[in-house]
Amino acid sequence: IQFGERLALGCSQVQLGFRHESRDQRFTVYVMQLSNCGALCLPADQKMYVRVVVLPCMETTRCLFRTRSFMPQDTTEVNEVFGMQISQSALRQKTLRVDVCNTSKSGHEQCLAGAQISLADVSCSEERCTKWYNLLSRVYMSEISSK
Amino acid sequence: IQFGERLALGCSQVQLGFRHESRDQRFTVYVMQLSNCGALCLPADQKMYVRVVVLPCMETTRCLFRTRSFMPQDTTEVNEVFGMQISQSALRQKTLRVDVCNTSKSGHEQCLAGAQISLADVSCSEERCTKWYNLLSRVYMSEISSK
Repeated sequence: IQFGERLALGCSQVQLGFRHESRDQRFTVYVMQLSNCGALCLPADQKMYVRVVVLPCMETTRCLFRTRSFMPQDTTEVNEVFGMQISQSALRQKTLRVDVCNTSKSGHEQCLAGAQISLADVSCSEERCTKWYNLLSRVYMSEISSK
Repeated sequence: IQFGERLALGCSQVQLGFRHESRDQRFTVYVMQLSNCGALCLPADQKMYVRVVVLPCMETTRCLFRTRSFMPQDTTEVNEVFGMQISQSALRQKTLRVDVCNTSKSGHEQCLAGAQISLADVSCSEERCTKWYNLLSRVYMSEISSK
């Protein structure tokens, strides 16, 4: 796909929800849905999934999660929920990476596009807050170094 | 530096400001200050700078900017401003990458840590809005693939 055509497709988006419950120090990430998946330029008939990582990650804590795989539609409902034990003050030092990935023919994970969200001001305490985030294609990231 | 020591340093943060003026379709990014620069683990006596990119980037528009270089202090005032011509609807499809970089001995740009900000809901129209963002070290990004 040419650069111009890719730009014309616009960007894909992911809808995420967050919640931090102070009582049991639990942070929950809701991967809700994806929109405009055509802009991901996934090869035909290939499944994809969403990978969620809370970084930096202590080795003793689980911080990496993957949804089931699904065939992309223009709007794709994901509706998966991941949780981890963490205090609010520790959470404010973290960054969430959310990537749309697939598995290459050689079996490697390849990430097509992603969002990175600073959790410095996570204010969604007891109530879940949701928001749409643009997914930045890896293609554009690699273009920077040539400028 | 060991992984555990690095974690104990916490994360560096960057304070950014945004403004979109609808009248002249101008988007302005204010790189205001950096905090906790020690967590960047920059080699002693090395200068650094901040690189700002609005992605995806049309070839006809300037979308990559760099601040002057400076010696990191614990809190470093940057106070530089970058602007580009863009409509609000185009801006909502963009993602801002902000990286703290230095120049290696071989003259290459190397980025130590960064933030990525979806501009899907930039609502800072006529008034400038400012916010602190966690900077995620590149060290942690490369760790994901091994999990």
